[in-house]
Amino acid sequence: MAHREDPLLLTPGPLTTSRATKEAMLRDWGARDDAFLAMTRRIRARLVELAGGEGTHEAVLLQGSGTFAVEAMVGTLVPREGTVLVLQNGAYGERIARIARTLGRRTVVLEAPEDRPVDPQAAADAVSRDPSITHVAVVYCETTSGILNPVEEVARVVAAAGRRLLIDAMSAFGALPCDAREIPFDALAASANKCLEGVPGVAFVLCRRSSLREAAGNAHSVALDLHDQWAYMEQTGQWRFTPPTHVVAALDRALAEHAAEGGVAGRADRYRRNCRVLVRGMREMGFVPLLPDALQAPVIVTFHTPRDPRFVFREFYERLRAHGYVIYPGKLTKGETFRIGCIGRITESDVRGVLAAIRHVLADMGVPPPVSSGGEGADRSSPGRGVGP
Amino acid sequence: MAHREDPLLLTPGPLTTSRATKEAMLRDWGARDDAFLAMTRRIRARLVELAGGEGTHEAVLLQGSGTFAVEAMVGTLVPREGTVLVLQNGAYGERIARIARTLGRRTVVLEAPEDRPVDPQAAADAVSRDPSITHVAVVYCETTSGILNPVEEVARVVAAAGRRLLIDAMSAFGALPCDAREIPFDALAASANKCLEGVPGVAFVLCRRSSLREAAGNAHSVALDLHDQWAYMEQTGQWRFTPPTHVVAALDRALAEHAAEGGVAGRADRYRRNCRVLVRGMREMGFVPLLPDALQAPVIVTFHTPRDPRFVFREFYERLRAHGYVIYPGKLTKGETFRIGCIGRITESDVRGVLAAIRHVLADMGVPPPVSSGGEGADRSSPGRGVGP
Repeated sequence: MAHREDPLLLTPGPLTTSRATKEAMLRDWGARDDAFLAMTRRIRARLVELAGGEGTHEAVLLQGSGTFAVEAMVGTLVPREGTVLVLQNGAYGERIARIARTLGRRTVVLEAPEDRPVDPQAAADAVSRDPSITHVAVVYCETTSGILNPVEEVARVVAAAGRRLLIDAMSAFGALPCDAREIPFDALAASANKCLEGVPGVAFVLCRRSSLREAAGNAHSVALDLHDQWAYMEQTGQWRFTPPTHVVAALDRALAEHAAEGGVAGRADRYRRNCRVLVRGMREMGFVPLLPDALQAPVIVTFHTPRDPRFVFREFYERLRAHGYVIYPGKLTKGETFRIGCIGRITESDVRGVLAAIRHVLADMGVPPPVSSGGEGADRSSPGRGVGP
Repeated sequence: MAHREDPLLLTPGPLTTSRATKEAMLRDWGARDDAFLAMTRRIRARLVELAGGEGTHEAVLLQGSGTFAVEAMVGTLVPREGTVLVLQNGAYGERIARIARTLGRRTVVLEAPEDRPVDPQAAADAVSRDPSITHVAVVYCETTSGILNPVEEVARVVAAAGRRLLIDAMSAFGALPCDAREIPFDALAASANKCLEGVPGVAFVLCRRSSLREAAGNAHSVALDLHDQWAYMEQTGQWRFTPPTHVVAALDRALAEHAAEGGVAGRADRYRRNCRVLVRGMREMGFVPLLPDALQAPVIVTFHTPRDPRFVFREFYERLRAHGYVIYPGKLTKGETFRIGCIGRITESDVRGVLAAIRHVLADMGVPPPVSSGGEGADRSSPGRGVGP
């Protein structure tokens, strides 16, 4: 059982980062000083490389959270007379639609249930029915449920229809394939504080250069105008507005650690192991994951809240926190759930730690002791017993 | 002469922060965890207190740089059919006008020269001539030149005319009086990384509560909608979108240090001493400040670049950096200038250090040795000799 000064964050980000990443923030950087500008260039180049975008795409860094980057992506790349089709199966897809509407872009939503991936064929039908659709937006890993959406297939149908693809890859970039040569996208938004294991405060959009060039004057915003942010940086090497220097330094360090771990493949391996140990261990205690294994991204796992009246989520959360683990509430519109993340600077042994803590906490709460059931092969069609729903 | 691992930042922010402020970033915080939410509440309450806004104003925190807060302030508080009069005497006033126009708000600009304060009487005349003006926007300390604008007088004429005042107090808040009872404002935008001596990545707007309540639906943005940001936090205690947790923790620590120094008065004292020692020492070397002492805010000082052809700013900058000091280029549209900041975790003795370094650097560059001239009483009407223009 872990006992440490700070709890381990089993959340979708901000998450637990390495000591070295945090220590990179122990310096003050001049925002216009060469050392900082060199760091900025290095980060931009590495992000383009991670996206397989050399020669085709540009990395535009942006102050703020991931949502700021998503809004900047929609507001800059979709012309004012454009139409966005949003493939929606959770809160983050819903947020894209809300943003597009608020920005005054015509918005069409194609909704799927929260526990089902978005449907590429339905997307193909929708764009063929509506020639006004210029852009299709999709969330790669919908953190609402933890579901993996079939972005490669979506990219194929969008390209075949001659439309443009915008991806919210917030909790995917760095651990799931985001190669622009395999998944042709016009733009992909993500942030420092998810699978790259940086700290929150900076986000980025990888943009097709030709689209970015055409996008001057589209934005209704100065702060969130990606074209202007990019053009200024290209011209001067500097950020338009004060950058979060310490956060950027942490991202630089986090990217070095990402590379040292073997890049996307190495990080995905560790997260997949974390996820496998977590799901297996939870199933062994009778908890039932929302998703079958095939749809589960190795990022965050949603579990049904046990029906036992002695299981109160708030108490479960507080007791786990006292053991040194912070988990996450559910976000589904239907059904009681909670979530446990697999990402951040955590290993299988940390996951075993949280599983042991959960066993203790269930006993302390007087919830029936774990029963052996479910296991790796089980899915929602064969719910475990014990604390399961 | 200082020789340290990291240079001292004599810049308008990001600036040199205390070790303890940076060390506050050595922990990972869960964004929805009670400890972090308590920190958020503490920061909001303290900002309201610093603005004398208890009972009348709300502190809305925002991810991003100060410009994000200025855009959010204009976009949320000025109705779509409103008109903004911008009192402009530098790049930051110009930026407010650009933002207001980009957001589609009718914008009127009243321009003053960069080395003159904005004119409250001219503002009074302008609003009386144009009844469509709903809001007046002014920059408290225009970092372009370092000039102090007469915000209290401006507030008086705006209130007398029944219009609303928006203040960009970016490099003033925390060191210059911003009391809403003395300077009645509808909203005041500032950021963590100026006179509060936090790190960059979070900004805030102090808003009159009644105006914020009326502002629902004004914004063309989701990310920069202050009403929504405030309403969500009031309802849930949480940030709408991922907060820059580490940066927020640093601000919490920086505010404690600000209070320990005696709040606004204590901080202003130190900055005024820094500024006095800087201006006197530079004048003794023959440098000529742009502004007379009465117009100089104790934040950043603009100096004319010496006319001596051996004085090349880039070289001067690099050599000073090698001595451990980062200064700032000029931003005036007319005339060659450079700037040296007085804010951040620096003292008179640090300022004496940079003065000594400048003496060395001038000698190394072969620029004529400092001459005794100018001094405290001198202003632009009696330029020094030696390296002066």
